[in-house]
Amino acid sequence: MAFFDDYKVLMGDPMTESDVLASVLDRVDRDLDASLERLFALLRIQSVSTDPAYVPYCRQAAEHVAADLRSIGFQVSLRPTDGHPVVVGKSASGKNGNGHTGRGEAPRVLFYGHYDVQPVDPLDLWQTPPFEPRIETLDGGRKIIVARGACDDKGQAMTFIEACRAFKAVTGTLPLDITMLIEGEEECGSKNLFGFVRDNAAELRRDLALVCDTGMWDAATPSITTSLRGLVYEEVKLTCADRDLHSGLFGGAARNPIHVLADVLSAMHRPDGSVAIPGFYDGVRELPADIKVDLEGLGLTPEKFLAPIGLKIPAGEKGRMLIEQISTRPTAEVNGIIGGYTGEGAKTVIPGKAMAKVSFRLVGAQDPEKIRAAFRDFIRARLSADCKVEFGNFTSAPAFDVAFDNPALAKARTALTEEWGRKAVTVGAGGSIPIVGDFKTVLGMDTLMVGFALDDDRVHSPNEKFDLKCFHKGIRSWARILAALAETDDRRRRQAV
Amino acid sequence: MAFFDDYKVLMGDPMTESDVLASVLDRVDRDLDASLERLFALLRIQSVSTDPAYVPYCRQAAEHVAADLRSIGFQVSLRPTDGHPVVVGKSASGKNGNGHTGRGEAPRVLFYGHYDVQPVDPLDLWQTPPFEPRIETLDGGRKIIVARGACDDKGQAMTFIEACRAFKAVTGTLPLDITMLIEGEEECGSKNLFGFVRDNAAELRRDLALVCDTGMWDAATPSITTSLRGLVYEEVKLTCADRDLHSGLFGGAARNPIHVLADVLSAMHRPDGSVAIPGFYDGVRELPADIKVDLEGLGLTPEKFLAPIGLKIPAGEKGRMLIEQISTRPTAEVNGIIGGYTGEGAKTVIPGKAMAKVSFRLVGAQDPEKIRAAFRDFIRARLSADCKVEFGNFTSAPAFDVAFDNPALAKARTALTEEWGRKAVTVGAGGSIPIVGDFKTVLGMDTLMVGFALDDDRVHSPNEKFDLKCFHKGIRSWARILAALAETDDRRRRQAV
Repeated sequence: MAFFDDYKVLMGDPMTESDVLASVLDRVDRDLDASLERLFALLRIQSVSTDPAYVPYCRQAAEHVAADLRSIGFQVSLRPTDGHPVVVGKSASGKNGNGHTGRGEAPRVLFYGHYDVQPVDPLDLWQTPPFEPRIETLDGGRKIIVARGACDDKGQAMTFIEACRAFKAVTGTLPLDITMLIEGEEECGSKNLFGFVRDNAAELRRDLALVCDTGMWDAATPSITTSLRGLVYEEVKLTCADRDLHSGLFGGAARNPIHVLADVLSAMHRPDGSVAIPGFYDGVRELPADIKVDLEGLGLTPEKFLAPIGLKIPAGEKGRMLIEQISTRPTAEVNGIIGGYTGEGAKTVIPGKAMAKVSFRLVGAQDPEKIRAAFRDFIRARLSADCKVEFGNFTSAPAFDVAFDNPALAKARTALTEEWGRKAVTVGAGGSIPIVGDFKTVLGMDTLMVGFALDDDRVHSPNEKFDLKCFHKGIRSWARILAALAETDDRRRRQAV
Repeated sequence: MAFFDDYKVLMGDPMTESDVLASVLDRVDRDLDASLERLFALLRIQSVSTDPAYVPYCRQAAEHVAADLRSIGFQVSLRPTDGHPVVVGKSASGKNGNGHTGRGEAPRVLFYGHYDVQPVDPLDLWQTPPFEPRIETLDGGRKIIVARGACDDKGQAMTFIEACRAFKAVTGTLPLDITMLIEGEEECGSKNLFGFVRDNAAELRRDLALVCDTGMWDAATPSITTSLRGLVYEEVKLTCADRDLHSGLFGGAARNPIHVLADVLSAMHRPDGSVAIPGFYDGVRELPADIKVDLEGLGLTPEKFLAPIGLKIPAGEKGRMLIEQISTRPTAEVNGIIGGYTGEGAKTVIPGKAMAKVSFRLVGAQDPEKIRAAFRDFIRARLSADCKVEFGNFTSAPAFDVAFDNPALAKARTALTEEWGRKAVTVGAGGSIPIVGDFKTVLGMDTLMVGFALDDDRVHSPNEKFDLKCFHKGIRSWARILAALAETDDRRRRQAV
């Protein structure tokens, strides 16, 4: 059961669903200046979460978001954590407020976003102060919103909130059963959110999570992120001799831990670019054929992707498209290495120790703990008896996939395609958003990740921006997605009659 | 023609050569306390060559040595350089003073040593002040001389000077045509000595160089160092992407320079421990069979050599004795490596750059410049077209070998064997003394390296020491060697009649 039935009852004068959506979209367009004003008010709050000096600003941002959500009909509470508070908002309880929706009913959704932002340093690289948002018109007339958080995530989160506001204005109510979860520690690792989600699982467990913190394929092509790679991060410390040695006196006899490290790290990849650790590919699935065709159609050539960073030859698994290499295939990367003498000039030392940091991006059902154990076994098997190894474990998160048969995915694709006039693509993101994994594992729900960031948004960097068009059409996109999710199978059948 | 003839003429009362040597050795024994006093006087001079604050002390040490050499009949000059002065002393010119000695005549020798010492820090680890020499009696009655420079090289150089002094006292003259070359910059790389030797080649070119700056095989076994390994030292800087990248966004597509470095460094050695660079072994000679048997007889097991540094499995070429691995075989070692994130915790970066320092110990006739070029080719052949490499060149010195058929070598072995009551061994030193290479290449002469340092002398470290027994028997050893070198074939024939 969805809101349209209530609406028709309330209004007495039945509107068709497309009439409602058209009214909502019209409202979004007419209200854009006010939407921007509201975004600017949030952007002015210096909610840098990592720096203790900004604690009052983080609180202020949380209260600001809470008040805004209340103004459009949410029941809101500021929930304390050991860090910055979490804002939880619930749409007024209706008949969909409790229990799982039945077959064919509109899903209850959990929207996740964050009100905190990255630090602004180096401040001298900002053309205007980072917390004084402004509209800049670029050559060719393209308008951008410039401020810290303009995109990540205040601007993106506000696209969803503004879409809700338009529904509220047009229909008097929110379009779905919506729970808002807006945290203040995403930029410092969401460290208190994991426990919060576990502790409040019953309250937060809905049918589907929505996140607006990802990007578009390009400025014209909307995108749904259907997978995030998981991560295992290990540190390997090797010790051979119990001290640094003179290479003249000991060279040729003493095991050099840099050699050992080079050997094992080199052995980690096969000549075809695949990872040689036994069992590494257990749980890695091939993409469905139609998705693969879609990805091929994007035409992301190695030249196009690598040229901006000064490269041209892809380094990953041979026989895979570049877009697979960076999103739907697992990887092993050495993130750091150090050993011996690294200063100026020459020192003929054979070091006693050497260290590397190694991380794995995981996909599909790869088990982080199995990968970790297999990696450690792989290293140990290649050490001589007098070479000692210590491992450090920094991160472990499984990959996340949206089930391709989740009906919300198809609805969102259609909605985005209608808004942007170009077929929405589904892509895997190479990075990791750990809380999304918890939505799946702890709360048992899929996450629909739709975002409007562009590659040139300078997220985390000076002069962060968000295209005005992305903000505006982002609101419209969410309006369409909410309408599509609200449209139940029951109603479609009734309308077909 | 050697001094004994002169001596017999001078004395009127002919002594046999063995009478002379016995008298000299007796003089050494009786004069030991005074020898120690003279060594202590030199040790009190704070001639640290690397630190500009010690310039006056270095000058003082040079003048002290010059005066001492004058007192035993050398004509001495202090020769300026761009750094600390070089002391050059010449035995009074006699009939052997000019021109090359004929067949069967005693060789004219160049003795090389250095009056400078290493810095003393960390000073707080010294049990007594480093420039206040003292005799300490260890458990079991072993006596040691403790001071900076006690061994390296003041104590060792003084063994030779005191042997000369004993000859002078007993016979009234020096036993051979001797040129002394005592420099003051050995501990900071002999940087001005190379030019000095080139500029004064005619003056310094003798038949044989003598050096007392190496060690004994063990406390009971004298040793002659017959080879020094050469050295090529390279720096390799790889650049892939033109910036550091996020491993989530680029992992799987962007070439990781740490991987490339690990691959090329790993490829540098074959599984059997040999170096895989094409042409690397050109010019490497097998040891003569009798030398190999001698080395086997030393019984240097991997356990014995590696246990003190916490290792037990030799890392060098399979099928080679450990003593070969560390002295007469060439090596390739990575002396340092750095790239990416090496701080605490985790950072998911794919670095743009990575760097390694790699050095090669050379033996026999290996050509340093060919090795350098082959190494660079080896690296370049393994890089993808978009990976750039820069090389840095820090050192290049060929290996040095004493010709095994040099008659001085056999004479010195016999002399040492007689003094120590144990067969003297000939060993290769794993390290490099570049100036010895120049004695060969610039001055065209072999170097006889005889030294009395022990492994526990803490050379370059706090509480440096020299065993009193090594000092005493070191003087006696040089007396025997000088006598043996002075004994000409002519005389042996005459005596045999």
